[in-house]
Amino acid sequence: MRDFAIHSADRSMQSAIQQKIDNLNKPKGSLGRLEELAMQVCLVQQTLSPSIAHPCHLLLGGDHGIEREEVSVSPREVTWQQMLNFTRGGGAVNMFCRQHDFSLRIVDVGVDYDLSGVDGILDRKIAHGTANFLYGPAMTEEQYDRALQVGSDLVDDCAAEGSRLLSIGEMGIANTSPSSIWMHLLGKIPLDECIGAGSGLSDSGLRHKREVLAQAVKRFIHSPYSSPDSPFSCLRYFGGFEMVAAIGAMLRAAELRMVVLIDGFIMTACAMAALGLYPDARDYMVFAHCGDEGGHQRMLKAIDAKPLLHLGMRLGEGTGALCAFPLVDSAVRMVNEMNNFEGAKITKYF
Amino acid sequence: MRDFAIHSADRSMQSAIQQKIDNLNKPKGSLGRLEELAMQVCLVQQTLSPSIAHPCHLLLGGDHGIEREEVSVSPREVTWQQMLNFTRGGGAVNMFCRQHDFSLRIVDVGVDYDLSGVDGILDRKIAHGTANFLYGPAMTEEQYDRALQVGSDLVDDCAAEGSRLLSIGEMGIANTSPSSIWMHLLGKIPLDECIGAGSGLSDSGLRHKREVLAQAVKRFIHSPYSSPDSPFSCLRYFGGFEMVAAIGAMLRAAELRMVVLIDGFIMTACAMAALGLYPDARDYMVFAHCGDEGGHQRMLKAIDAKPLLHLGMRLGEGTGALCAFPLVDSAVRMVNEMNNFEGAKITKYF
Repeated sequence: MRDFAIHSADRSMQSAIQQKIDNLNKPKGSLGRLEELAMQVCLVQQTLSPSIAHPCHLLLGGDHGIEREEVSVSPREVTWQQMLNFTRGGGAVNMFCRQHDFSLRIVDVGVDYDLSGVDGILDRKIAHGTANFLYGPAMTEEQYDRALQVGSDLVDDCAAEGSRLLSIGEMGIANTSPSSIWMHLLGKIPLDECIGAGSGLSDSGLRHKREVLAQAVKRFIHSPYSSPDSPFSCLRYFGGFEMVAAIGAMLRAAELRMVVLIDGFIMTACAMAALGLYPDARDYMVFAHCGDEGGHQRMLKAIDAKPLLHLGMRLGEGTGALCAFPLVDSAVRMVNEMNNFEGAKITKYF
Repeated sequence: MRDFAIHSADRSMQSAIQQKIDNLNKPKGSLGRLEELAMQVCLVQQTLSPSIAHPCHLLLGGDHGIEREEVSVSPREVTWQQMLNFTRGGGAVNMFCRQHDFSLRIVDVGVDYDLSGVDGILDRKIAHGTANFLYGPAMTEEQYDRALQVGSDLVDDCAAEGSRLLSIGEMGIANTSPSSIWMHLLGKIPLDECIGAGSGLSDSGLRHKREVLAQAVKRFIHSPYSSPDSPFSCLRYFGGFEMVAAIGAMLRAAELRMVVLIDGFIMTACAMAALGLYPDARDYMVFAHCGDEGGHQRMLKAIDAKPLLHLGMRLGEGTGALCAFPLVDSAVRMVNEMNNFEGAKITKYF
């Protein structure tokens, strides 16, 4: 597995940044979370004048063997259908990228459909979906490494375009299932608390999903793949290609000192995994929202993340991350554009 | 007092709107609050293709006689200093208006300083600040009517420019005090729960504010101005010119079927007052955020309002309303730009 040189953000500038923020013409602390965000972005970029120009959104697509067990209300074909829909601009991710001026990269990391040659889709396919983890590892070690590298390379491309901020979304029918298991195994949270209705399971569907996932975890734990010395053996055993690519993207972004917007349930599971590998990657992550999927709130709490938005969203594609972007933008504008007390000729009252 | 012809939004289109939203290519309900917002804007505008082009922000400034009682950490002069700062583009409200492409109207409704002839400030001054309500009514009935009309006329100007969405902010040192008393008297909420630290009072400062406001309420109740038949006698007794103008703006916006973004503590108090006068104005209000001022959450609950953002902000100027705007924009884009299942050629799975 490739190594990432990730270091927590240098805090030597912290007091200078705080002083700048406190001297803007507003009551101290009165912009709340925006002030915290401003501090984070300044520390990540080691500057008093941050920039988040040219933001990039990675839309990573992949299919999941576990979908064969009917753990999702949506059929597998929706993954490739949505990927094509995204190329035509008609998806949720498209309109939010347009709204917030993100450059969108639609990437096939492992969709179970031939998308090669489709205009607007980057072909990084590792396989036609993962293997079904009810019966064995979802991917080989070599595939895991490749997926990680795919994500990392995509971030290099964004950085080469001048991007300092990245958001990541996914399209992969059934990917709440591996996310729930990662949450369970990495976060040591009871499995039942990690499982939700995904894109709309009925009560009986949810019961079935719980049974399948419990069975899969049980088999994994009693398999030679499970190793107490390697808590991350579960990443390749259960993960999706798009999820491992997301981890690679998050880690490379941290290595390059870019801000990463973390989306909903699936992306938070990937962030949890990334933080398990490199805890210092935390400084670069902005947790965008708490979604409606059962377990998301619990998972955010487990990694002590305070999401910016609570809007009951559960669409995926990175839509929650994109919706939080204007707040990061506001924070950056605050630091760069707002007058200070002296410049504004205002009595500094405390 | 002038009458407003306000009617709740006609709901006969509701099922057609819901059908359009449900048929967009996403799991039903998966965009959470954005879907509710989309419904609201469609109902307000009575259309399946809403538009919020040319949004306007009203920044209403006024001073308060009660400031003389040292109920605020900021001195009165900050009101006019900030008004001038806004004309130079250096305030928080300016940067958020630029960010979200709002046309900004800076209006002197009652600042205690000569701002006439200042480029960029609309002169609608009623008086140099209100009277001190510790000793009597803050304004006369005639002044109340004028302030209401000022707000209403400003909305007409916005509408004439093609605006269908309005946000309102205020600048008025000490205006959390009248807001707290309105909340207490209109919402029948214990006074202590209505009073917070404003822009940064110390504990002893907060104690003093509580004593002053309790005394003012007591005197009001025992004065001839208090009338059980006229619960809104308290509006002119305690209100600020900028606050009454905000009520006028909210009511005129509802009359014209415009969406109004409601900001923090002071604007929520004005919304509460507006709803007391015209309950049907509710359909046109979007509650933007729950701020950090003690009592704001309680007040929102009292009028059963679910704010979009919780970011610990307490700056005023309408900054919270502006920060919530992109979510309304996202909701409108969803209805207008997102493909439906048929158009996207995606299996509709439920």
